[in-house]
Amino acid sequence: MGAEVTISLDAMGGDQGPEVVVPGAADALIRNPDLRFLLIGDEKRIRPLLEPYKRLKERSEVIHTDVAISMDQKPSVALRKGRWHSSMWLALQMVKDGRADAAVSAGNTGALMAMAKFCLRTLEQVDRPAIAAIWPTIDSECIVLDVGANVGADARQLIEFSVMGAAMARAVFNLEKPSIGLLNIGVEEVKGLDHIKEAGQALRSTPLSFRYHGFVEGDDIGRGAVDVVVTDGFTGNIALKTAEGTAKQISAYLRAAMGRSFLARMGAVLAQGAFSALRDKMDPRQLNGGIFLGLNGIVVKSHGGTDATGFASAIDLASDMASSDVVRRLADDVARFQTELQLEGAA
Amino acid sequence: MGAEVTISLDAMGGDQGPEVVVPGAADALIRNPDLRFLLIGDEKRIRPLLEPYKRLKERSEVIHTDVAISMDQKPSVALRKGRWHSSMWLALQMVKDGRADAAVSAGNTGALMAMAKFCLRTLEQVDRPAIAAIWPTIDSECIVLDVGANVGADARQLIEFSVMGAAMARAVFNLEKPSIGLLNIGVEEVKGLDHIKEAGQALRSTPLSFRYHGFVEGDDIGRGAVDVVVTDGFTGNIALKTAEGTAKQISAYLRAAMGRSFLARMGAVLAQGAFSALRDKMDPRQLNGGIFLGLNGIVVKSHGGTDATGFASAIDLASDMASSDVVRRLADDVARFQTELQLEGAA
Repeated sequence: MGAEVTISLDAMGGDQGPEVVVPGAADALIRNPDLRFLLIGDEKRIRPLLEPYKRLKERSEVIHTDVAISMDQKPSVALRKGRWHSSMWLALQMVKDGRADAAVSAGNTGALMAMAKFCLRTLEQVDRPAIAAIWPTIDSECIVLDVGANVGADARQLIEFSVMGAAMARAVFNLEKPSIGLLNIGVEEVKGLDHIKEAGQALRSTPLSFRYHGFVEGDDIGRGAVDVVVTDGFTGNIALKTAEGTAKQISAYLRAAMGRSFLARMGAVLAQGAFSALRDKMDPRQLNGGIFLGLNGIVVKSHGGTDATGFASAIDLASDMASSDVVRRLADDVARFQTELQLEGAA
Repeated sequence: MGAEVTISLDAMGGDQGPEVVVPGAADALIRNPDLRFLLIGDEKRIRPLLEPYKRLKERSEVIHTDVAISMDQKPSVALRKGRWHSSMWLALQMVKDGRADAAVSAGNTGALMAMAKFCLRTLEQVDRPAIAAIWPTIDSECIVLDVGANVGADARQLIEFSVMGAAMARAVFNLEKPSIGLLNIGVEEVKGLDHIKEAGQALRSTPLSFRYHGFVEGDDIGRGAVDVVVTDGFTGNIALKTAEGTAKQISAYLRAAMGRSFLARMGAVLAQGAFSALRDKMDPRQLNGGIFLGLNGIVVKSHGGTDATGFASAIDLASDMASSDVVRRLADDVARFQTELQLEGAA
């Protein structure tokens, strides 16, 4: 892949569609001037939105379709009905055909995963794809996976998620030997669910291209104890949403505390620069995007309810992933790991 | 139970032992002047600590033992070795013998649960005890269970946890018909793990003494969507620790943001009343205590690393539970529910 990266955008996905996707792409283009876009959706809605953005217009191709996958469509139905013409499917198809290096959609997660598996196919070295999230920590960021591609995971899948998470950490964080932790309810080796203990034993006893840290607990994620936190899709999704809920809750406390007295309001005015820095740090839009790992191509899922700033973050992430050739590296890593590890012992 | 409530305190439990337990009891006594205490631990350490607290001294009996269960003792070992003489076991024994209405310990959770099951026995209507936590929400509080008594739960246990959580909500929050939600990765009935869907179907189709709300997601906990959030002990523990970690992380951001510039520091000085209100709201010590539900007696587990303020909160909770006769009400509720529900259909 050269310096030039092309990203296909499902312009009909999400709660807003092109009204968020087009300004999001314009925003991302300011930071990454070499990007090109395939804007896939209703031409009549997209063209007028492009008008204010001269440079984006030059670097975009509009591919018309007025078929959208709705946010509440069941994955199985999305796969059956009219999938070949939907903006979501076409965005993936562009990656498959090599016309785009990555696809970004703010559409329905379940439908996107089902379509991505069908269109791009799972890497032959991989059993099950996972969704990875970038999670802010006190001093930096970490990767958490799976946050919802699967409802469970066995030992073998947890090991695979570890290898894929490590490959992503190398690509996105530029780390030589990232550290990996398995999410559990205690750090002692005897604690927790059997398949987690089994995965831990296999990871501990295998020479690895990453550093296996051991078990981590829920509060270790935000503390930044490891670069990659590995868990099943059920637990990962609950943890992610619980953290989002806690952040919202504390924002509400902060607003209430600051509005309570004259002095507090005065203080808030003086400290507003600091508050806006804090809001940026707590802003889920800055880290907006679930990355699908384990497929023959890069797919980034943006929050359905995001705005242009959030959608632009998802594009940034897709661009980082595409420039670092992560798919090939990930496939190599999984293959190498399967040679290193007696997988029968872990499966 | 009369107005007078006696609480047995494992004075050797936790990281600090009597140095936290004695001042914690003194603090709780200010708010609940009718409390009496059985202070169980090393007399030579407890007596001098009692000296500054005249009223606490009058209302406490010291029961000597110098055997402590260490924080890293395995539950199975704690049950075997010297259990009859440990402060933890004796605190539970006082409840069993009717000399105390509730026991509070900051000791090792696994050992306390193992001993509590052995000493007090599980209620005959109940399959498995659970640990409930009180979780702050934006406007109030909710109950989350199980947060770690078990590593998993089947449909029948989730239903039982729902009934026990509802009984506790009636006792602690004084609610006629509390609302209950099952923690899942989506609110649609088709989503999530099979045993959760099964429990949801059974709860939906049974006439209940509480209001079954349906599925809730991780961010609904802090939002206060329901009075009681029901989940298995693995997921509940991960969610609880993730929320604690997120709160700590945001505190760190806030401190950093406020120290960044002169204006921000000025603002922080002016707003310090508001900040201290915020810290109170975010302070885990204010809601310190996991309540063991489903046993023949009330046992409250305080955080091992808590200070006197936190230990006093755990005593407050034990006192609320004891005054509301929650054990009998809980046993009645579970029995009634088992009549109402075709349990075979759910088990």
